This record gives sequence, C-alpha cells and structure tokens, in this order.
Amino acid sequence: MTEQNRVVRLARRPVGLVSNDDFTIADEPIPEPGEGEFRVRIACISLDPAMRGWMNAGKSYAPPVSIGGIMRAFAAGEVEVSNHPLFKPGDKVTGLFGAQKYAISDGQGALVVDTDKAPLERWIGGFGMPGTTAYFGLIDIGRPKKGETVVVSAAAGAVGSMVGQIAKIQGARAVGIAGGPEKCRVVTEEYGFDACVDYKAGNLGGELAAACPDGIDVYFENVGGEILDTVLPLMNTFGRIPLCGLISAYSASEPLPGPKNLRSVLVNRLTVRGFVIFDFADRYEEAATALAMWAGEGRLKFREDVREGGIDAFPETLRLLYTGGNVGKLVLKV
Amino acid sequence: MTEQNRVVRLARRPVGLVSNDDFTIADEPIPEPGEGEFRVRIACISLDPAMRGWMNAGKSYAPPVSIGGIMRAFAAGEVEVSNHPLFKPGDKVTGLFGAQKYAISDGQGALVVDTDKAPLERWIGGFGMPGTTAYFGLIDIGRPKKGETVVVSAAAGAVGSMVGQIAKIQGARAVGIAGGPEKCRVVTEEYGFDACVDYKAGNLGGELAAACPDGIDVYFENVGGEILDTVLPLMNTFGRIPLCGLISAYSASEPLPGPKNLRSVLVNRLTVRGFVIFDFADRYEEAATALAMWAGEGRLKFREDVREGGIDAFPETLRLLYTGGNVGKLVLKV
Repeated sequence: MTEQNRVVRLARRPVGLVSNDDFTIADEPIPEPGEGEFRVRIACISLDPAMRGWMNAGKSYAPPVSIGGIMRAFAAGEVEVSNHPLFKPGDKVTGLFGAQKYAISDGQGALVVDTDKAPLERWIGGFGMPGTTAYFGLIDIGRPKKGETVVVSAAAGAVGSMVGQIAKIQGARAVGIAGGPEKCRVVTEEYGFDACVDYKAGNLGGELAAACPDGIDVYFENVGGEILDTVLPLMNTFGRIPLCGLISAYSASEPLPGPKNLRSVLVNRLTVRGFVIFDFADRYEEAATALAMWAGEGRLKFREDVREGGIDAFPETLRLLYTGGNVGKLVLKV
Repeated sequence: MTEQNRVVRLARRPVGLVSNDDFTIADEPIPEPGEGEFRVRIACISLDPAMRGWMNAGKSYAPPVSIGGIMRAFAAGEVEVSNHPLFKPGDKVTGLFGAQKYAISDGQGALVVDTDKAPLERWIGGFGMPGTTAYFGLIDIGRPKKGETVVVSAAAGAVGSMVGQIAKIQGARAVGIAGGPEKCRVVTEEYGFDACVDYKAGNLGGELAAACPDGIDVYFENVGGEILDTVLPLMNTFGRIPLCGLISAYSASEPLPGPKNLRSVLVNRLTVRGFVIFDFADRYEEAATALAMWAGEGRLKFREDVREGGIDAFPETLRLLYTGGNVGKLVLKV
C-alpha cells in the first residue's frame, strides 16, 4: 500500500461547540510541489482558540475556512522535496500548513527553525502563535510600566501564561484569572505570577480587587463576557485592554451580552484595542529573538500539552480548548 | 434689599432622569474673593450631558458633586472684583464657575476671552467644552484620513455637530446619527454633513450601511447602547472609536446591556478609547486657535440654544439634554 496524505477538511459550519461531524478526515494522494514550492512532512499541529472563529462564516480578520477546504492550522515539520530556493530538504519549518500529514507551501509565512535551540513543538508552541501574540499584545498594546498591575484571563493557557511572565520581565505585577484551583496553582507556582484568581470560585470581583490593591493598569483579554464586565470597574485611569480573544463567545451560537460596565472605558479613559498577530508579521523576528533570549535566561517557562493520536484525533483534541481540558499550549503529534 | 447670590446646590443623587427636587435653589450672600482670587458675575451657564454623570456617586474622572455642594458647571461672565494678578475687573472670562450668579475663582482653568471675536455664549458654546471635546476626540483619537468615513451619534448636538464639520474640514466623509427628521435636516443642511440617519425611523443598521458604502473608519460615540451595537459590525479594519459620551446610560438607574458585537473590536482590530477634555488641558489653546480660525473662514457653523429663565430654570433646562428637547449647544442665561 502506498503512503497517503491524511487530511482534515471542514464539512460544515459548527453550531456551538465543535463536533466530530463538522469535519471529514480522509486519505488523499500525497501532493507534489510545483515551481517555487516545497512539500513538508508535518510532525505536529498547533491547536489554537482562534480556530473556532476561522470555522465561522462571515467577515473576520482572515477569510473563513471554506466548506470542503483543508482546516487552517499552524504546523511544524520537515521539508521533504523542494523547488524553492530558500527551503532545502531536511529543513525544519513552521507555517500555516493546515491540519494534514503532508502540505505544499510556497514559503509565504513559513520559517526555518533551529531545533538545536528548542524542540519542534516549542517553535509552534511557546515561540509560535502564543508567544508572538503575548509579546505584541502586551508590549505594543498593553505597554506595562514598571510597578503597574497586569491582569490576564485564561492565565493558564498558552497565551495567558506568556503574558504574565513577560509582564514580570517588564517589572510589572502579574495577576492571572483561571478556572479551578489546579490551573491557579500552575499559574502562580510554575509561571511565577504574583497571584491568580479562580473565576469558578464565585467571587471574582472581590478576589480580583483584593489581588490588585493598586487597581489594574493592563487587562489582557482572552475571554470576554462576564469576566470582562467584572474587570472593567477595577481598571485604573488610562488603563489599556489588549483584546486578544473572546473565548467565551467562540462557541456561542447566539451573541452574548456585552459589558454592562462600558462606562468604565469612558470614565477611566481606557483604551480597548483588538489585534491579531498577523498585523505584526513584519516584526515576528523581533518577538522570536526576545522570547528565545528570555527562555535562554530561564525567565520563561512553557507548558506544552502535547497529545498523541495523529490526524484523526484533531476534532476531539481541538474541543479541549473550549471545555477547559488542557493546561498550556495544545499541540497534536501527527 | 441687598443683591444676593442665587445658587443651585445638589440636594440628592438623582435616580433616572434629573428632577427639580434633586436640587435646592436659594439666595445666599454674595461671596468675597480672598487673596489671589477674583469674583465673576456670571452671565451664562453651559449645560452639558456630562453633568448627569457628575451628579452620580462613585468613581469617575472628576469627583462627584457632593450633596449640598454647588452644582458643577462651565460658565462665562465678567470679573467684578479681583485680587488676582492675571484677571482684571471688566475681563470677560470662562471657567468651571458652577451653577450660580456669582462665583469666586482662583484662576485655575479660567480663561480671559475676547468678546470682539465671538459673543460670550460662543466661548462656552462652540469654542468651549463642545468644540474642544470634538476637536481632541476627533483629531487625536479618531485621526480621520482624507476620504475616510466618520460617523457621529447625537450629530445634531453641540459636540456631534462640530465633529462632523471638523471631519469635513479634514477631508473625510461625515455621516450623522440623530433622532427625528428635523434634527437630521439640521445636520445635513445646516452643518453640511454628507448624510444623516434617523435612529428613530427603525432601520438604523440598514440605513447606516447605505449611507456608508465604504464602511466606517471613525465612529465618534456620544450615545452608547443599541446604537453602538448597530455601528460596530459596520466598522472597517483598524477603525477608531473615540468614546466621548454614553448619553443613553446617563439617566439609567440600572446598567444597560453592553454591546453584543464586541467581537467586531477584535476581528476588525478597532481601537475604542475613552477620553475627557480635561486630559487635554495643556492644549486648549491649540483647539481654540483652530476652531476660531475655521469659524473665521466660515467653515464651522454653530447653533446655540440659548434659554432665558435665569438660575431657577436650571433643572428644567438641564433636563432638555436627556429628553432630546434641544438642538445645538444649550446655554442658560442668568
């Protein structure tokens, strides 16, 4: 039997939580690279909360994955065959290669990475989408000053854990919001946040106020919904809110109510700014350099939640992101 | 009978719409200026939507007016007696003098104005809080580029009408949102906006989309609530939303639901920024210079809704702002 490609395609637009039936997973012939292209044998696939948004129809920062189209995904692997001058067989590469075993790339957005410096998972994990997102969202939009308080939601997550650690490196106080005592423990003990508040414990407002005696200067938002509403009145004058994700709304089929406390944005002269990492594409190297430097100094810790199971486990693994089933950056080995 | 001061004091915190009973209005002795102070005989008082917020308890950009305290208000008048080196008897001045007939000032935030250039009402009207607010909110936060589309809510109001006119001066397309056909007529015919949509006509989303065929780049927000929710999905990538006021919420005793369409802020990478003119205090002269220049060139039109009635008419005149009873900048003659 000849080796085949294995491809995850979008079968229909999900309603609510992603289900297995939203995808088809099937064997297909291994594709051949054309002029100026190369083929990657994918070793691991990055699972990111943004994926749920990519599956929806309608205007977004990137076109939706088409019905029948290969599911969009960051992935890492090895170049097998190349007709591209900058990518050679044996190169380890990352890029938006899709949820499949073999991908063709023209090199756009693809990077050759050094697996002597960090394992391949880290290049689509800590140093990949999550690290880059945390870096630009916090440094460029949050702009924390020494001694300020940075709060981040989904703090045990891939982006959140990086945000707090980078905040500490910048001399700020880092406070996380996470769901459940185990996640909170990871946030303070492993990632070194100054405090972490469990939103599931039922008194987020009071506990967050106690954990932030000088108020909140930067709120890095991954979640939205009630958590945002609770944070808004605690913001200090001229606070900044990088709006990175709205996990709470991704799987909702009806729009969720927005923040009642919008007045806080006016009264406290807050800046709420949405962003996506693609906007910073010309500065990826800056982020990678800083992240690798801090990691080399032992100042950044990563937790990769690497799942086995191969391509066929893609839907169930993806679902973990929206049910709180993972701790740290979720990666699927192919 | 000796001449007395007449003073509006806050009797209690209003619930919902402002009522007469929220104030006490009484005669008091005329105050005498101390060292470094001067006394103003007030000629007219500026009525501004922000006043409703100043009456509420709780954290805001300025401390709340205390119960029993003189109602905070911008006003204009003439210096009568002065122990201040920079203010001389006969000077026409504006400042945060309060809702009363005679005020003492130490000169902070007070400006001597030239009534040969514009009548006193204009210095607390078009050139005062509304003009300054429109100027900094649009120029600094909205940053409209030539050919972009600027939408402003409460477009027939004092701030809104200036925003659209300044947008046109900057080479942008100006679209207003106002309540009722008469206000919309004023917005397009008198203030020269390119279009104005009547939110009371029941199809704001559809009509606004039709009036903004290239989408919305800057939304100058005075209202909040459902109008903001309707505008959000029409915003273009990297759009800016200066958050100037939330009139719809000022008189609400319960928090109103926030925007369901917050996801648009993320997806379109919008910047929502709250501001108040006090933040730009060191640049008031820049705004006054620009506004006076444009007015001198005939490029800015003002509509002052100057009410007679004196100090005792303060509560009922203020109420007009929240019931849509005025067109243009509301000023009360003392």
